[in-house]
Amino acid sequence: MKATVFYAPGDLRVVQVPDPKILEPTDAIVRVTHACICGSDLWYYRGLTPFKPGWRLGHEFMGIVEEVGPEVHTLRKGDRVLAPFAFSDGTCEFCQKGLQTSCVRGGFWGMSNDGGQAEMVRSPFADGTLLELPGDLSMKGVSESALLKAILPLTDVMGTGHHAAVSAGVSQGATVAVVGDGAVGLCGVLAAKRLGAARIIMLGHQRKRLELAESFGAADIIESRGEAAISQVIKMTGGGADSVLECVGTTDALNTAIGICRPGCTVGYVGVPHYGNVIINFERMFRQNINLNGGVAPVRAYIPALLADVLAGRLDPSPVLDLSLCLDEVPEGYKAMDTRRAIKAMVIV
Amino acid sequence: MKATVFYAPGDLRVVQVPDPKILEPTDAIVRVTHACICGSDLWYYRGLTPFKPGWRLGHEFMGIVEEVGPEVHTLRKGDRVLAPFAFSDGTCEFCQKGLQTSCVRGGFWGMSNDGGQAEMVRSPFADGTLLELPGDLSMKGVSESALLKAILPLTDVMGTGHHAAVSAGVSQGATVAVVGDGAVGLCGVLAAKRLGAARIIMLGHQRKRLELAESFGAADIIESRGEAAISQVIKMTGGGADSVLECVGTTDALNTAIGICRPGCTVGYVGVPHYGNVIINFERMFRQNINLNGGVAPVRAYIPALLADVLAGRLDPSPVLDLSLCLDEVPEGYKAMDTRRAIKAMVIV
Repeated sequence: MKATVFYAPGDLRVVQVPDPKILEPTDAIVRVTHACICGSDLWYYRGLTPFKPGWRLGHEFMGIVEEVGPEVHTLRKGDRVLAPFAFSDGTCEFCQKGLQTSCVRGGFWGMSNDGGQAEMVRSPFADGTLLELPGDLSMKGVSESALLKAILPLTDVMGTGHHAAVSAGVSQGATVAVVGDGAVGLCGVLAAKRLGAARIIMLGHQRKRLELAESFGAADIIESRGEAAISQVIKMTGGGADSVLECVGTTDALNTAIGICRPGCTVGYVGVPHYGNVIINFERMFRQNINLNGGVAPVRAYIPALLADVLAGRLDPSPVLDLSLCLDEVPEGYKAMDTRRAIKAMVIV
Repeated sequence: MKATVFYAPGDLRVVQVPDPKILEPTDAIVRVTHACICGSDLWYYRGLTPFKPGWRLGHEFMGIVEEVGPEVHTLRKGDRVLAPFAFSDGTCEFCQKGLQTSCVRGGFWGMSNDGGQAEMVRSPFADGTLLELPGDLSMKGVSESALLKAILPLTDVMGTGHHAAVSAGVSQGATVAVVGDGAVGLCGVLAAKRLGAARIIMLGHQRKRLELAESFGAADIIESRGEAAISQVIKMTGGGADSVLECVGTTDALNTAIGICRPGCTVGYVGVPHYGNVIINFERMFRQNINLNGGVAPVRAYIPALLADVLAGRLDPSPVLDLSLCLDEVPEGYKAMDTRRAIKAMVIV
């Protein structure tokens, strides 16, 4: 089969690799139909975080079950399934708590595991990891392909934006600020609106993305940076936002998020940090009782509720997928995202 | 009247100053009966945070109302009152939310305001700030002086330890770790026990304080530091504590707290930070969904519930006050705390 393999920063190739096989009785083999390229994939691509030559790429995908191991009980060949970006056994303490990203036997797609930007994937813990989609995906006036495109972001960015909003405690009628206009931040706007935010302020810099944020429900757009952005939000909200979603992962973004909090408010942080230690404005946090909640999103826990809304026509994150490619074009997709020509690429396998 | 005045680091004096007067119609004048010296006072004393010569000292006190302004409605001359360490108007958005430390017109005792280590204090916003104690403080088998000593820590350290526990989400049956064996950490042990913690682990270094922690309900004592302490707690809890109370305020303490969290757990942070920016282990926070909640404790909001428990004989933080002094001896009290001869000094005025 074909899979996307990392050779060096800036050098990814779609090459022939051995077909995956069932290795454990709880495995399933999934034939990938749709995958994505993630903003966090760009860190490897840019050489900013270490990645080994030979490792696989892609952690967002859906597909059709091709084969299941003898201990897979909830899925069978032919089922259409969605995979969250982490696999998890579904039974450990953390899976039971809905924190599947901390599963004691779990892991992430790609690297030394199979990656989603490929024709097939061996899924460990298929029962705990994969979610079956309804067999009949017809929705009034929406084609199956459009609906699949709306479901695909639930593998990562929509669930991550939702985690930011949930962690930030977004409540009915709240004023919410979203730091970052990437796919996660844009999904954060949708998530905040879905949770009842009355006013959403988007902080970002890319015209096209900011327009999408507006169409998703952001009423105010802040294009300035650092202290200027902080003053602007503090002024327009009369003291800060009720909840802030940090969807970038840099020290600057985190401190901007802390800076625009109203006293007692919470930053929902989901931006993948670029480095281990960050210097935060702890004095402001302390004085104003600002909370920092979040982390890597346990997307698996959120899919059922978000999927129900997509299937009911109440949620549609598909506009973040503004580029469609076939598998052989994956390297082009990385280039397009690296140069910001695309927000997020969908790969139709 | 006499009041404690800052001259220079290491040089505090109890000197004659003008008696306070009602300046605003919402003021009250309180004749102080009991005050404390706080661990956070030591930062000024040691010259670690800026403090101006001439500024007053003391933010923990109780006393008797001597006079009230014409717009004070809930108090009158002769009432025995307790003051939280911050004054607040009781009416603004943040006071209404129970976050009185962010009151838009509020402030802290001492500095350019009156300090509690004095014979009298002018209290701004008396209705919003001061809490009246019951006229009859008799409790079966407990003297009034012992009861007042048990109430006095509610002005700061007991409310602050409680804020750490509440912010850390301590729940029934939880395993809770407390970082810091100062008066706040010790009160954190009491607070965690009060909220139903099944197992309390105390991290500290002072033998006398650790013994007090044990008598307050800490089952395990960790005296090692840094990585050694982290490994020990991770091992003994099978992966980390359910809630962690950070009661020191240094970068090391904060990162120890982050290091001993179980995935998905929350650090309740209340240690007064020694500097504005801190470098935190954000990678561990992100990967394991660790939350950082807390800040300067809105003690005013917590006093009623804690006071009810003290008056009912269910809560007694008085053992943290292990040194009693008269007002003229206040400088001796600072020395005793600075050299760790005393955990916390009570000043009987």
